[in-house]
Formats: sequence, structure tokens, C-alpha cells
Amino acid sequence: MRGIFVTFEGPDGSGKSTIANMVYESLKDKIDIIKTREPGGTKISERIRDIILDTENSEMTDRTEALLYAASRAQHVEEKILPSLERGLTVLCERFVLSSIAYQGYGRGLGEENIETINEFATGGLQPDIVFLFDVGENPSENRKIELGGDRLEVSGEDFHRKVREAYSLLAKRDRFYVIDATKSIDEVFNSCMEILKTKLEVSI
Amino acid sequence: MRGIFVTFEGPDGSGKSTIANMVYESLKDKIDIIKTREPGGTKISERIRDIILDTENSEMTDRTEALLYAASRAQHVEEKILPSLERGLTVLCERFVLSSIAYQGYGRGLGEENIETINEFATGGLQPDIVFLFDVGENPSENRKIELGGDRLEVSGEDFHRKVREAYSLLAKRDRFYVIDATKSIDEVFNSCMEILKTKLEVSI
Repeated sequence: MRGIFVTFEGPDGSGKSTIANMVYESLKDKIDIIKTREPGGTKISERIRDIILDTENSEMTDRTEALLYAASRAQHVEEKILPSLERGLTVLCERFVLSSIAYQGYGRGLGEENIETINEFATGGLQPDIVFLFDVGENPSENRKIELGGDRLEVSGEDFHRKVREAYSLLAKRDRFYVIDATKSIDEVFNSCMEILKTKLEVSI
Repeated sequence: MRGIFVTFEGPDGSGKSTIANMVYESLKDKIDIIKTREPGGTKISERIRDIILDTENSEMTDRTEALLYAASRAQHVEEKILPSLERGLTVLCERFVLSSIAYQGYGRGLGEENIETINEFATGGLQPDIVFLFDVGENPSENRKIELGGDRLEVSGEDFHRKVREAYSLLAKRDRFYVIDATKSIDEVFNSCMEILKTKLEVSI
């Protein structure tokens, strides 16, 4: 039986990574499961990630950025995610197509449709079974660390990150996803995700 | 006045590079002109080129390859080709979208339409004013050097390169391009290209 593909989506500082790790730790001894992340996840995808995030590449155009994310994702899907699903593993993935729609489609202003088109090609049409969308509203999370010396996207300015948060809030309203109120406590957020997963995995976990 | 955008397309060993250099040398003191090439042409495009051609990356998927070429091209167009054309320069470019259609669309079997769609996005719709298509027929050029230790595409096998040559012959028949019989002598090929350029550039060169 094919595995379940679960993605964790939301702006920086929304707690995706923390919760994905907690979910993985609580399930890894009970079911066959892997955790991965984007951009990255394979050797070639990590090399592409290095180019995307390198602050030396300040002249990178928005279209180049969007196509590099799609290239990295194509490799990740075909080399790692799909073979794992076909072997019956549950795959937890931090960020997937929705991140590109929010960051490149809205944040960079390239348009949702363009980003969906190139990602349809990149993923060969693979869709997650569960998308957890960590909604923090349109205001910056209190937790969001504004650090000196972040990567090329982190240092893209507050206007860019505001557009990304707005995009996630907009996308959350469309109710194609499991929207998680990420302003709640970590335990509450974790429990919300686990309730949904238990139903979908149809096993007692 | 906007410059003229000229691309040189054709399979490996068809003489594109030699003729592009001869055209550049014969025009550089008469008009404002640059010569560039793909994949590459800018710092970021060259970093992407390194990933594409690295024989260590034998696990690269066809879709990843196609998206990396498009990413490299997006940077090349927006950072170098378009600004040069807008300054009135004639731009000579070895390989452009047609190479992706032949190599990834036909050689890798990803389909012409898919490759056109992602490249429409990559180039923002920029089309060459002149495409020289160096046709060598469907058989390998006698000049084609089969060298040990080529790059990742050069070592992709004879079946792949046969499909690429067939694609170029197929595309040549559609007569959207200036088809150059690349089996003729270098001087004849050069003169054919120059005749077409003289008409298009509308100046005595």
C-alpha cells in the first residue's frame, strides 16, 4: 500500500520545523516513516539550495529563483519522495509547492498560476495527502527571529515577508488544507496535527 | 533602437561555435555587438551550468535537468541579454530555447510543449530575431568528436544524441528558422549566415 505524503507549510517562525520533528519522533517507532525538507533533501537538491540561499547571489532574478526551487523539488520528488511512498513509507516534508506559491508567486509577485504550472511539471503532478498550513495571521509572529546574517531569502526585507504571510493567510481561507492555528502553544499545535494524522493513517498511533 | 538577437542552434559538432566566433570577429569593429553562450553567460548561470554538466550528478532526473537549463536561461536573459538589446547591441548567442526543445523535449522525451511552457516563463517571452539552425541531417556529423570524459550530457549515449539530431531535422522542416546546411564548408556556412545578417541588420557590413 502506498504511503501517506504529509507536508508542513507556513511562513518563517511559524513552528513548522518544531512540530514536524515532534510528529516524527512520536511516530518513528510505530510506523515506517521518514522526514525530509525543502529546499534540499538529496545531494543534487542541496547543491541547488546552496545557489538559491547564497547571499553572494544578490543579482539572482525572481524567475531564476522560482525555477531553481522547482528544479530542486523535481529531484527530491523523483529520487526520494516517490520511491519512499511507493515502498509504503509515510513521508513528512517541511515545505513543498505551497511555499513556492507563497514566496515566489506572491512574495516575488510572479503570480500563482505561473508557479503552479512549473511545479506541476516539476512534481509530475504529485500532490500531498495532507497539507498542514501553519497560519500566524498577517502579522509577524512574536517568535520570528530577525537575525543578522540570514540566508538570501531571510534577508529579503520586511515587505517581502509581509506579502508571504498575507499569501499564507489567503491560501488558508480557501480551505483546501488543514489550517493549524500556529499562534497556540506548541502542545496544542502538536495535538491538532496528531488528531488529523491518526484519522488519516487509520491506525492507532 | 533595440538590438538584434541572433541565436545559433544545432547538435554537438555542427559548427555553431566556430561560425558564431567568425561572425563576431567580422562584425565587432563595425557594430556594437556581444557574443555569449548557454548554458552559462552570467556568474549565477555558470554555477547552475556546473551542476548540470557535472558527471558526478549521474542520478539527475530529466525534469531537474530541464528546469536547471531554464533557471540558467532566466538569469542570462534578464541580467545580460535583455539589457544589452535595450542598449542597442546586437547579441549573438550559442544555444537558446531550441536547444532545450531538442535535448530535453525530444532527447529526454519530456515533450516539446512542456519545455516551451517552462521556457516561456524563463525568458519572459523573449524570442530571437534570427535563429540559425545548423542542420547536419539525422546522421552523426563526421566532425563530431566522440571524446572520452565529456560532460554529463556528452556522455549520455548515442541513442540520446540520435534523438537530438532527429529533433533538429524535424524542427528545421517547420521553416520558422534560417536553416543552414552545416554539411557544407566552413566558408560557405559563414557566408550564408552573413548574407542573412546583412539583410536583417540593414547596414553595409
